[in-house]
Amino acid sequence: MSKQILVLPGDGIGPEIIAEAVKVLQAASEKYDLKVELEYDELGGAAYDKYGTPLADETLERARRADAVLLGAVGGPKWDTIDPALRPERGLLKIRSQLELFANLRPALLYPQLAEASTLKPEVVAGLDILIVRELTGGIYFGQPRERRVLDNGERQAYDTLPYSESEIRRIAVVGFDLARLRNRKVCSVDKANVLASSQLWREVVEEVAKDYPDVELSHMYVDNAAMQLVRAPKQFDVIITDNMFGDILSDQASMLTGSIGMLPSASLNQRNQGMYEPSHGSAPDIAGQGIANPLATILSASMMLRYTFSEAAAADAIEQAVSRVLDQGLRTGDIMAAGCQKVSTAEMGDAVVAAL
Amino acid sequence: MSKQILVLPGDGIGPEIIAEAVKVLQAASEKYDLKVELEYDELGGAAYDKYGTPLADETLERARRADAVLLGAVGGPKWDTIDPALRPERGLLKIRSQLELFANLRPALLYPQLAEASTLKPEVVAGLDILIVRELTGGIYFGQPRERRVLDNGERQAYDTLPYSESEIRRIAVVGFDLARLRNRKVCSVDKANVLASSQLWREVVEEVAKDYPDVELSHMYVDNAAMQLVRAPKQFDVIITDNMFGDILSDQASMLTGSIGMLPSASLNQRNQGMYEPSHGSAPDIAGQGIANPLATILSASMMLRYTFSEAAAADAIEQAVSRVLDQGLRTGDIMAAGCQKVSTAEMGDAVVAAL
Ligand SMILES: CC(C)[C@H](C(=O)O)[C@@H](O)C(=O)O
Ligand SMILES: CC(C)[C@H](C(=O)O)[C@@H](O)C(=O)O
Repeated sequence: MSKQILVLPGDGIGPEIIAEAVKVLQAASEKYDLKVELEYDELGGAAYDKYGTPLADETLERARRADAVLLGAVGGPKWDTIDPALRPERGLLKIRSQLELFANLRPALLYPQLAEASTLKPEVVAGLDILIVRELTGGIYFGQPRERRVLDNGERQAYDTLPYSESEIRRIAVVGFDLARLRNRKVCSVDKANVLASSQLWREVVEEVAKDYPDVELSHMYVDNAAMQLVRAPKQFDVIITDNMFGDILSDQASMLTGSIGMLPSASLNQRNQGMYEPSHGSAPDIAGQGIANPLATILSASMMLRYTFSEAAAADAIEQAVSRVLDQGLRTGDIMAAGCQKVSTAEMGDAVVAAL
Repeated sequence: MSKQILVLPGDGIGPEIIAEAVKVLQAASEKYDLKVELEYDELGGAAYDKYGTPLADETLERARRADAVLLGAVGGPKWDTIDPALRPERGLLKIRSQLELFANLRPALLYPQLAEASTLKPEVVAGLDILIVRELTGGIYFGQPRERRVLDNGERQAYDTLPYSESEIRRIAVVGFDLARLRNRKVCSVDKANVLASSQLWREVVEEVAKDYPDVELSHMYVDNAAMQLVRAPKQFDVIITDNMFGDILSDQASMLTGSIGMLPSASLNQRNQGMYEPSHGSAPDIAGQGIANPLATILSASMMLRYTFSEAAAADAIEQAVSRVLDQGLRTGDIMAAGCQKVSTAEMGDAVVAAL
């Protein structure tokens, strides 16, 4: 049976990088004899422009029916002044929530070919390979009640709620421990259990899950310390599991340690392994339409799709190796350009990966 | 009239580093003809051991009557297993809240003599001088309701509340803008206004405050981007203002950029400029009692006390210069030791600063 993929190019550089990822996905499918069927729709600002909403019901229905979603990126200054409830990122949050994509996998991997790009000293980041597993559909992002109001004394006040239930914590912990088994069998759970009630439950449930994984080493770390340790000695980490908000912050921090966020893919999975795949970077409106964006994070997101949703490890590996090979060849988009390398366009990079396949 | 200072040595290395800060404070007072009266009490684990609570009522009363509090550090494995409500950090949170120390000033300053200690490349951090102004008595740290309960379906659940009122936001913003005027007149306000209701109000009120400071440049940044930018190009920041939780994370991240967290002081001030002063680092129980801890962050905290609570800029400057001079002399405690320098004990470091005064 053929795999159904919904492609959402999104905003800014989204369409350009998606075009290259689709090229690579099709080449890999041919080579490994996979049948993929692509359908296209809009998300974010592009959806607002077309449908008047950042995620149309009909797009959501398509996403539900698809096996996987390949997303470019959303957002841009064009939509900064519209009704906050209709801004591009609302579409992203809604599709995450509606598809229950609770497990956000964000690798922070340093490509040896790009070691120089990091702002950290080479010895601190050489060989860096962290996987951040962020809870994506709970916590303060979606907690109710949240409100803005006027207090009796006339002051404006606003508040948000940070809730976690044991099943929400358990399922993300299980994903983290399972993935640790495929790696270095170390899980660091990050919370703020010395202050937050939700973190105390988080820690307790993670401990319970750990009992089923005696072969995986579990540690706990407060989020402030984690932010320090990621600067001080990032290689101490293997898999980090953490809540939605802490994961948002730490995964961005960790990805920047590599110096080449244009290389980092991400996956957001639900209980049925249906997934949305997107680069870790944003829509970069400042360089959109110029054909100079780095498509590799999106290409690697397609590789994650093959690995996690379609269990096609060989095809996924082949894409990763092809990416490594074009880096070895010295091909670089502007964001990762270095002395002695050859600067290529978005499309040239995509073509080179296809050729290397 | 003499200045009343309550000294709380706390736990771990607290007593050792406090002893040196007191030496320096007394030497500076003598030199600049200030009358200071010191009173001692306990906070954290030491208070739990003595009074059965991490902050005794009578200690809190003493703190209220004092002009300033000089704190070592609290916490340690000895108290890891006691009732969470009695743990050392509860005493810290309570004194912050009871004295309404809403403005937490945490400088991240790179000493040129210690540039090598950073894990970041020298060109990225040379001359780094950021001041993080963290809201310290509101937000999710103290928000009500917070609860742990069992849901109807039998699941455990826990939640916290993140509230901010306009007066809470306004007063911390004013502190940030005022301090920016004494520095490079740039304020970056960090929030998550694309997700949180509280952050939307935060951004709005900061904009309102900014109208009174046309000479200060204001920017806004999402917290995930701020965590990235602190790695990518930390020198873009001058003053950062942010909420309690984001400030906890970002100030620790920023302090680690310098590579010498043993050098970084902090101040927590209320509306009357009453303040609590403490090093940014923790109680380091692993090296407690050995006389090898770095007292400089605590000594510099005493300097901040002279500057912010007592308006004794000359004395404060003199301490800072004395610290710089001992670094120039090549004296180093273990944590900042480098080739060609002379390793000294906690007490020798304190004595050297006194001599340099
Ligand atoms: C755009 C924004 C709502 C989103 C988030 O905070 O989750 C983004 O930062 C991310 O990490 O995917
Ligand atoms: C000990 C802890 C409660 C405290 C905090 O989170 O505020 C500490 O991390 C700090 O930054 O002073």
